[in-house]
Amino acid sequence: MGYNALPLENLIEQFASLPGIGRKTAGRLAFYVLSMSEDEAKAFSDAILEAHERIHNCKICQNYTDSPVCDICSDASRDKGTICVVEDAKDVVAFERTHEYKGLYHVLHGLISPMDGIGPEQLFIKELLARIQDGSVKEVIMATNPTAEGEVTAMYISKLLKPLGVKVSRLAYGVPVGSDLEYADEVTLYKALENRNEI
Amino acid sequence: MGYNALPLENLIEQFASLPGIGRKTAGRLAFYVLSMSEDEAKAFSDAILEAHERIHNCKICQNYTDSPVCDICSDASRDKGTICVVEDAKDVVAFERTHEYKGLYHVLHGLISPMDGIGPEQLFIKELLARIQDGSVKEVIMATNPTAEGEVTAMYISKLLKPLGVKVSRLAYGVPVGSDLEYADEVTLYKALENRNEI
Repeated sequence: MGYNALPLENLIEQFASLPGIGRKTAGRLAFYVLSMSEDEAKAFSDAILEAHERIHNCKICQNYTDSPVCDICSDASRDKGTICVVEDAKDVVAFERTHEYKGLYHVLHGLISPMDGIGPEQLFIKELLARIQDGSVKEVIMATNPTAEGEVTAMYISKLLKPLGVKVSRLAYGVPVGSDLEYADEVTLYKALENRNEI
Repeated sequence: MGYNALPLENLIEQFASLPGIGRKTAGRLAFYVLSMSEDEAKAFSDAILEAHERIHNCKICQNYTDSPVCDICSDASRDKGTICVVEDAKDVVAFERTHEYKGLYHVLHGLISPMDGIGPEQLFIKELLARIQDGSVKEVIMATNPTAEGEVTAMYISKLLKPLGVKVSRLAYGVPVGSDLEYADEVTLYKALENRNEI
């Protein structure tokens, strides 16, 4: 050890348990917390508890919110006929940053991953199916990651949706804007060729 | 914004205020906190408060501790005749990792830095001078960083210590072990040459 104080060791452990934070960074963060004022430390501590207590899933789309229904689902100007299905709440933030998508979302909170013991019943899939029942939804866009798990999940859900008479689409594969073709992998290049558009 | 919930925004702000944590990482950490169990979030929150409440400076060396006197100062096997003066508590951890240094420490909690408005009176210098008074300390090692501020601070303190009849030394400059000479800067190389040892 060497940190010479148990509460400090404990705080370092807490930071080190966060994703992407190693012990060295955890030590730096813990020392920074010690250098905070009493009020600052209290505010930080409270923010953790409060976020955890007050934030839950939106009744409709399962995105994080502190209201019963989230801001996006309760926004009358959004297109209620389109649902974009994503893996987690971070993806909603990414799509919102484009300022182009005007439909609604559905957050699965995970992907089907037999390797990690995650089956479809652990995701919010039946909540998605329930949203389709009243016939107001015209299109569901499968926007899970372009990975094996994302692909399997998109395929699984689209098979459930098709019999309900809803259009199911998938994000386009292709080369990222601003990237260098030299570094593009073969599968991506092949997909970009296959999906080429007339100009 | 786009995070769709104020307590979440607030938690992200808190993480983003930590050193070296950008908004993107802060978002990732905040989402991770939301995914914690109630107990885990409580433990994290408590660790911040507890570390802040229970940790203070050692009465003797000013290192962080949860006792009146830290483990190092109260360890009878340490050499009470040598004090290693460092900028902050992280440096104590670094020296302890060598398992070679058996003396005591003195933590200044900063360096003299006129640019940042930090003068000698804001550091724990008079506490260091008080430790020299009884004549039991034979050597003070100035182990501040090899930077302009570290150098100025080491010079300032050594001028105060010399009249007290104590030996004052400074860390050796040289090339880091395992490094590549090609990437060493001129000043370091010059110092390594100047301080060369017969083999």
